[in-house]
Amino acid sequence: MCELLGMSANVPTDICFSFAGLSRRGGETGPHVDGWGIVFYEEGGVREFKDYMPSHGSKLSQFLSDYPIKSHIVISHIRQANVGGVGLENTHPFQRELWGQAWSYAHNGQVPAALDLANTRFSAIGSTDSERIFCWLMDSLAARFDAAPDPQVWADYLSGLCESINKLGVFNLLLTNGNALFCFCSTKLCWITRRAPFGVAQLSDKDLSIDFAEVTTDNDIVTMIATQALTNNEVWHTMAHGECRLFVAGESVWECHTRAVLHASAASQADGA
Amino acid sequence: MCELLGMSANVPTDICFSFAGLSRRGGETGPHVDGWGIVFYEEGGVREFKDYMPSHGSKLSQFLSDYPIKSHIVISHIRQANVGGVGLENTHPFQRELWGQAWSYAHNGQVPAALDLANTRFSAIGSTDSERIFCWLMDSLAARFDAAPDPQVWADYLSGLCESINKLGVFNLLLTNGNALFCFCSTKLCWITRRAPFGVAQLSDKDLSIDFAEVTTDNDIVTMIATQALTNNEVWHTMAHGECRLFVAGESVWECHTRAVLHASAASQADGA
Repeated sequence: MCELLGMSANVPTDICFSFAGLSRRGGETGPHVDGWGIVFYEEGGVREFKDYMPSHGSKLSQFLSDYPIKSHIVISHIRQANVGGVGLENTHPFQRELWGQAWSYAHNGQVPAALDLANTRFSAIGSTDSERIFCWLMDSLAARFDAAPDPQVWADYLSGLCESINKLGVFNLLLTNGNALFCFCSTKLCWITRRAPFGVAQLSDKDLSIDFAEVTTDNDIVTMIATQALTNNEVWHTMAHGECRLFVAGESVWECHTRAVLHASAASQADGA
Repeated sequence: MCELLGMSANVPTDICFSFAGLSRRGGETGPHVDGWGIVFYEEGGVREFKDYMPSHGSKLSQFLSDYPIKSHIVISHIRQANVGGVGLENTHPFQRELWGQAWSYAHNGQVPAALDLANTRFSAIGSTDSERIFCWLMDSLAARFDAAPDPQVWADYLSGLCESINKLGVFNLLLTNGNALFCFCSTKLCWITRRAPFGVAQLSDKDLSIDFAEVTTDNDIVTMIATQALTNNEVWHTMAHGECRLFVAGESVWECHTRAVLHASAASQADGA
C-alpha cells in the first residue's frame, strides 16, 4: 500500500512540517520505500518533484523538507509498489492536461482489474493500475463535459466513477485541477481543517512540533488530508467508506456518500494498509 | 529571448557541468531572469524541475548543479519573458502525454501569430505563444498518426510543421518523446558530440573545467545542443537556418534542411537573441 497527503489552503502555505512527517514513513517509520512524489499548485502554475528512491534519506526530499514552497493545493504520495515496477514512470502523482488545466492524481490501494480498462484519449505511460484508472477518469471527464464545469459538477460526476472503481478493489484517491481538491475514501483517509485560533501541532513520526499561531494570520484556513493522521495532539476527521469530499481554499465545500460496497478482497487489504 | 540546452546520450549521463554553465546565464552572465526549467528522462520515466526565479541564485538550480541525475535525454530552458507573464505556467519545458509517451518541448524565439492557432485535443495551460505552438504540434501529430511511428517518421512530418511555424517568427526548438531528441534551428542553435578519446572542456560562463576522460568509458557518446556554445575550448557545429536534426543515443541519426524563409522580423530578432 502507499500513503497519501493533500493540502488545500486559502493563502499560499508551505507544507514543510507535514512533509517532514510523511517522508519519514518512506523507509523510517513506514515501509513505503518505492519512490515518492509531490505536486505544488502555485498561482496559475504547477510543479512536481519525484524520486524513485525512498523519501527517507533522499537528498531531494530533504531539500523539500527545508525549502518552503508556498502553494494553495498540494498532493503527495509515498509508494510501496504492488502493480508496476519501481521507476519514475510508476511514481505518483500522475498528471494530465484537460481543458487547459493541469490535473494531478495520487492513489492508495490496489485495483488489479483496472488494467483491463480501455483508454481512449489518455494513455498510461507506466504500468500501474493507478495510472490506468487516472486515464480512464480523465477520458470519462473529457467525454462528459466539453469545457471545465464548476468543481461541484465534476465532483458529482466523479463520485459515481469512483464508486464503480471502488467495487473492484481498494481506491483511496486525491485528485485536483488546481482549483479544487477532490478526495474519495475507499478504506482509509482522514482530514483536519486548521483555522484561528491556531495552536501547537506535534508530528507523530518525528520529534518536531510547530506553533501555527506564529506562522499564520487570523484569516488563514488550511486543510490537510492524509492516509493516517500526521499529528498526535489534534483531532482528525476519519472519512467513512465511500465518502467523497471537495475542498476549495481550505474549506470543505461539498460531500457525498456513495454506496460503500467493499470488494471482497478490499476489507482484508484495508486491514493491512 | 531565451536559451536552450539539450542532451542525448547512449548511457545515463549527468548534466551538472553544462547546467552549471547555463544556469549562470539566468541573471549572472546573461539576462534570462524570468524562470527556468529542466526535464530529465531516466529509463522509462521522466521528471522535471521548474522555477519562476532566476536560475542564477536559485536554491533549486544550485541543488541540481550539485546533484547528479543520470539520464539519456535532457531538455532545459532559461527564460527571458516576451509573450506571457512570469510564472510556472509559462515556464518551459512544457509536457504532454501522447501515445503513452511523455513529450517535452522548449522554445527559443517569438511567434506572436501563434496565439491565433486553434487547439483541439491539447490546450495551453499558460499564456505563451510557445505553449500554443506545442499544443498545435501535438494536435497535428495525434491527427496524423494513430500510434507512435518510428522517430524518423514523426521527425519528417514535424519538420514540415516547423517550417510553417518558422515563417511566422523565430522558432528554435527542442522536442523529445524520451526516445529521440528533435531540434529545429530557426536562427541560433549549435551542437557537439563528445566521444572517445575524451578531453578537457572549459565552461564559457564559469571558471570550471572537467576532464571527461575521468568520468566516462570509451563507449560513451554524448551530444549537447545549445543556443550558444557552453564551452570555449571545443568546436561546436553551428546549425543552419531551417536545419532539423534528430539525435538518438547521442548520435545524429537524421537531418533535413527546410526552406529557411525567415519572417520579416526574424532576422532583426535573431541579431538580438
